[in-house]
Amino acid sequence: MTVRTAHYRILYRDIDSMGYLYYGRYMALFELGRVEWMRDEGWRYRDFEQQLGLMLPVTRTWCRHLAPLVYDDLARIQTWIDGWSTATVRFGHEVYSQESGQLCATGSVELGCVDRDRRRPARLPAAFQELLQRVAGDRGGRKRGV
Amino acid sequence: MTVRTAHYRILYRDIDSMGYLYYGRYMALFELGRVEWMRDEGWRYRDFEQQLGLMLPVTRTWCRHLAPLVYDDLARIQTWIDGWSTATVRFGHEVYSQESGQLCATGSVELGCVDRDRRRPARLPAAFQELLQRVAGDRGGRKRGV
Amino acid sequence: MTVRTAHYRILYRDIDSMGYLYYGRYMALFELGRVEWMRDEGWRYRDFEQQLGLMLPVTRTWCRHLAPLVYDDLARIQTWIDGWSTATVRFGHEVYSQESGQLCATGSVELGCVDRDRRRPARLPAAFQELLQRVAGDRGGRKRGV
Amino acid sequence: MTVRTAHYRILYRDIDSMGYLYYGRYMALFELGRVEWMRDEGWRYRDFEQQLGLMLPVTRTWCRHLAPLVYDDLARIQTWIDGWSTATVRFGHEVYSQESGQLCATGSVELGCVDRDRRRPARLPAAFQELLQRVAGDRGGRKRGV
Repeated sequence: MTVRTAHYRILYRDIDSMGYLYYGRYMALFELGRVEWMRDEGWRYRDFEQQLGLMLPVTRTWCRHLAPLVYDDLARIQTWIDGWSTATVRFGHEVYSQESGQLCATGSVELGCVDRDRRRPARLPAAFQELLQRVAGDRGGRKRGV
Repeated sequence: MTVRTAHYRILYRDIDSMGYLYYGRYMALFELGRVEWMRDEGWRYRDFEQQLGLMLPVTRTWCRHLAPLVYDDLARIQTWIDGWSTATVRFGHEVYSQESGQLCATGSVELGCVDRDRRRPARLPAAFQELLQRVAGDRGGRKRGV
Repeated sequence: MTVRTAHYRILYRDIDSMGYLYYGRYMALFELGRVEWMRDEGWRYRDFEQQLGLMLPVTRTWCRHLAPLVYDDLARIQTWIDGWSTATVRFGHEVYSQESGQLCATGSVELGCVDRDRRRPARLPAAFQELLQRVAGDRGGRKRGV
Repeated sequence: MTVRTAHYRILYRDIDSMGYLYYGRYMALFELGRVEWMRDEGWRYRDFEQQLGLMLPVTRTWCRHLAPLVYDDLARIQTWIDGWSTATVRFGHEVYSQESGQLCATGSVELGCVDRDRRRPARLPAAFQELLQRVAGDRGGRKRGV
C-alpha cells in the first residue's frame, strides 16, 4: 500500500469561532490529499477531464473527527487507496496535527468515473486500473466501493 | 419525527468546474439545516455556547451523493433527528433540487456535547434532551451515536 | 436608482476565531446581492452564459469594513448599479447587521463582459444596457468602470 | 522593500464553473501571503492574539483581476508592506500563475490593530513597528493607511 503525504497550513479563513478547523473543510484537505497522491503517481486529475473526457464526481464520504486542528497549525494529510472497482475508487485519509502529532480525523472519499459528455458511468482508464492493482493489491485487489 | 426544511440558493462560489456543487459544501448545507431545525424548535445554537457554556463539535459525518446540484438552483434541505444519547445528537439530512425535484444527497452529522471551558464531554441540557425524546421518540428513543 | 435587498444567515462556517465574518466572505455576500438584484430585474446570470454565450468575470473589487458581522446574525445586503459602460458594469453594496442595524461593510464589484467561446471582451446585451440606463440614469448614465 | 513569496495549489474547491479561481478566493491567497510574510520575518499572527492580546481585523481591501488562475495551477503570491501607521498596516500583493508566468491579480489589504478585550483601536507593538520601519523605509516611512 502506497501512502502519500501532503501538507496544509491552517488559515484564519478555515477556522470557526471555537478556534477549530471547520468540519466541512476536512473535505478540502482530503481533496488536497488525493490530488497530491495522484500527482505523485504521475496522474493529474485535470488530464482525466481534458485528455480522457472523464470526470470523477464524489459519490460517498465518511469522516470521523478525533481532535481539533487549530489556527496556524500545519495539517499533515496521509492518503492511500482504500478500495476500488473498474468504475470507482475510494481514497482513505488520515489528518494529523504537525504540532501535537495527534490524529485529528480519519475518513474516506469514493469517486465514480463518468463520461464527461454523456454524463454516464464509465470505466476507469486501463493504465489507472493497473496503478490501483499495483498499489492496492495487498488490500485484496478489486474491491467494490463501500 | 419532526422534519424541518431550509433553503439555499447555489452561488457561483459554491460550484466547481463540472458545474456541480462542490462535495464539501454539502457539509455547510447540513449546518444550515440543523441550525434552522434548532431555531424552529426554539433553540439557538449560540445559546449553547454563550448561555450554557457548552459546545457541539462535529464528531462524525457521512454523505452519499446521488445527483448534482447546479448553479442558480435552489437547494431544499430536509433535517430530522436521526439518533441521540445523553451526550450526542445525530442529525439526518436530505438535500433536494427545487428545480428537478431530485434527491441530490443524503447524509448525517453527529455532534458531541463538550464543556466549553474544560473542553471535556458533557451532558446535553435536560430541556434539549426532552425535545429529542419528544421528536425522535418514534425512532426508538435514546439511540447512541453511530 | 433601484436598490435591492437580499439576506444571508451567518453560519459557523463563515466566521473566524475572532467570532467575526471572515473578510473574504463579503465577496460571496456581494455575489448574492448582485445575483438577487439581477433576478429581481428579470435577468438570470446563468442565461448570460447558457443563452447568450457571455461570461461576466470580476475585474475589480473594493471593500471597506466598518463593523463585524457575528455568528447567527442575519446579513442584509443592499445592492445597486454604481456605474457602467457598454462592456462593464459595477455593482455597489452595503451590508448591514439585522440585529444591530449597523452598517458593517460597503464595497463595489466590477464585472467585464466576455465572449465565452473566444474569451474576448464583448458588449453587454442591448436589453441589459437599457436596464442599466433606466435604473442608473440618475447617476449620470454611461459611466465607465472605475 | 522586502518581498516574500508563498505558493498555493488551486483545487477543485476553489474554482467556479468558468474554470477560474473564484474572485473572493484571492482574499484567502492574500491572507496566506501575509501570514507567510510575517512568519518569514519572525512574527506569528497568533502571537498577536495569544501573547499580546491584540487582534488585526481587516479594514479595507482592494483587488484588480487581470488574468484567470485555473484548476491545478500553482499560484505564486508576492507580498510586501505597502504602507503603515502606528495603528494600521497595509500589505500589497501580486498573484502570478506559475504555469503561464502571467500576473493574475494585484491588490492590497489593510489591517487595523485592536485591543482584543476592549475591542478598541490600539498601537501596533513597538518591535513590529520597528520591522515596518526597516522593511518599508524606502517607501517613505510612516504612511497612513489609504
